[in-house]
Amino acid sequence: MNIIDGISSRRSVRQFTAQPIGDDALSAILTAGMSGPSAVNARPWSFLVVRDRDMLCKMADGNGSAAQPLKGAALGIMVVGDMTRTFERAPDYWVIDGAIAGQNMILAAHSLGIGSVWLGTWPQEEKISAQRRLFHLPESAVPHSILAFGYPEDSQKELPARGGYEADRVHFETW
Amino acid sequence: MNIIDGISSRRSVRQFTAQPIGDDALSAILTAGMSGPSAVNARPWSFLVVRDRDMLCKMADGNGSAAQPLKGAALGIMVVGDMTRTFERAPDYWVIDGAIAGQNMILAAHSLGIGSVWLGTWPQEEKISAQRRLFHLPESAVPHSILAFGYPEDSQKELPARGGYEADRVHFETW
Repeated sequence: MNIIDGISSRRSVRQFTAQPIGDDALSAILTAGMSGPSAVNARPWSFLVVRDRDMLCKMADGNGSAAQPLKGAALGIMVVGDMTRTFERAPDYWVIDGAIAGQNMILAAHSLGIGSVWLGTWPQEEKISAQRRLFHLPESAVPHSILAFGYPEDSQKELPARGGYEADRVHFETW
Repeated sequence: MNIIDGISSRRSVRQFTAQPIGDDALSAILTAGMSGPSAVNARPWSFLVVRDRDMLCKMADGNGSAAQPLKGAALGIMVVGDMTRTFERAPDYWVIDGAIAGQNMILAAHSLGIGSVWLGTWPQEEKISAQRRLFHLPESAVPHSILAFGYPEDSQKELPARGGYEADRVHFETW
């Protein structure tokens, strides 16, 4: 799948079939997540892969109503910020670096026919705390986002675009 | 270019030829930037496109030493957070949404043979203030990142990978 076509045809998929995601596809997705740029190449992230249905349900309940699609996903990947690796002069770049990793994984999955939906966690403290408790994360590991992955149900294959180019969002040369 | 190949072959390009970037390519890049997911589909961003050499030099100087490649870029795009559009329950999702937009633009450019380097601005207050002053941005417009784009010099076409898969960054089921 061509990159530009892939970026524009991606949709947030919230209903998944029971088909599992194989290890080769998972590996390609994770490799994409680790192939983005990061500030001073700090790579301040880790990834928590969950397939266990009971844990996916608990993650979903801890992340609020928008996270319910995770309950039917083939797997979830939590992007976790690693505070031991952040750029010391501006640690909060970890938020940007984690988002780059997430979008790379979503696009790689899409190119393999795997749908996904991005479930925001950071900066909502109650969601961060819930995930931290569930997985007994150390202080240095900050939940960033949860991505739910799975093969899309037929109803999810022709979702309308919710965005695209808007001329009034672009300024040329001056504000 | 295949998505997975594109993600893994992308490098941060810091030296550019004098070849300009045409309007069709720019439009494709901006469309990609506006095609990512955003929290509650708020799309809390705008894009400032700069081709003027004098302004590119001033942007670079305001963004610190790592931003010097912008001086030789065909154009720069500043991702700007739009605080009038953020998700009211968690406004800071704008940081993640801006990063998703940036990575989409970098990948779209790469697929067109256009190199780029990501120049971090947020969360470094002195960089944010410098860009804000330069473009007389309103309070609601927060500089997020500057992306320098241009056709890569030959020396930039075979840069080594600085990352890829690291098994110790992945946790399965438990931390």
